[in-house]
Amino acid sequence: MARFDPPLDGAAQDETRDLRPKFDDDGLIAAIAQDVETDEVLMLAWMNEEALRKTMETGRATYWSRSRKTIWVKGESSGHIQEVADILVDCDQDAVLLKVRQHGGACHTNRKSCFYRRLEGSGTVLSFTGPDR
Amino acid sequence: MARFDPPLDGAAQDETRDLRPKFDDDGLIAAIAQDVETDEVLMLAWMNEEALRKTMETGRATYWSRSRKTIWVKGESSGHIQEVADILVDCDQDAVLLKVRQHGGACHTNRKSCFYRRLEGSGTVLSFTGPDR
Repeated sequence: MARFDPPLDGAAQDETRDLRPKFDDDGLIAAIAQDVETDEVLMLAWMNEEALRKTMETGRATYWSRSRKTIWVKGESSGHIQEVADILVDCDQDAVLLKVRQHGGACHTNRKSCFYRRLEGSGTVLSFTGPDR
Repeated sequence: MARFDPPLDGAAQDETRDLRPKFDDDGLIAAIAQDVETDEVLMLAWMNEEALRKTMETGRATYWSRSRKTIWVKGESSGHIQEVADILVDCDQDAVLLKVRQHGGACHTNRKSCFYRRLEGSGTVLSFTGPDR
């Protein structure tokens, strides 16, 4: 597998037209999945070099599981795959934004999005959003 | 400063109505900022316990800078503050989604969003999005 080019310094990294992902000390970048049709933020996950490469090559969102320490094709067992319509990178390229067509729920709880609870007022109480529960 | 309650195990964490942020080994959670009006994803940053607490208390997005190792009130020097309209947490509470009213550009390059480049086709060439550059 070809390696990605290394990150550049400062503003050069912000303005380069080359993909130069900036993996952290654990070899990871953050990956946000957003529904390409509704713009709903679905989940946040992690990618190592292989996961990013596979996502680019297959068009299916593929992540790195920090807890299981393994590559993970999203929806491989549940069928809740993410077809990747677009991949955007942020200024210093330590995060990517995937615009995806989500099949079924993105969340392992079967909800559409993992972000199904919001903070109430100024306290630490959460309320559930959405119609499902 | 009061501590947050500790995370629960498995499904209990997914369904609790208590804010129980799951900080990683570096004491951090990921924070996505999304424009509350346009649903555009603006940036990804990090929060430690103090940053999350300050965000909740002040209604201004406050992050932890991994490079500078310091608390950072977004827009403190640039004026490009983020008024927090809503805070959502994900299933295992290791990420938060801030719905914000963004003043000026969210990105340090002055662009509205940090995600201003997309991957072209299947290669590693990036193209710039948006009208600004």
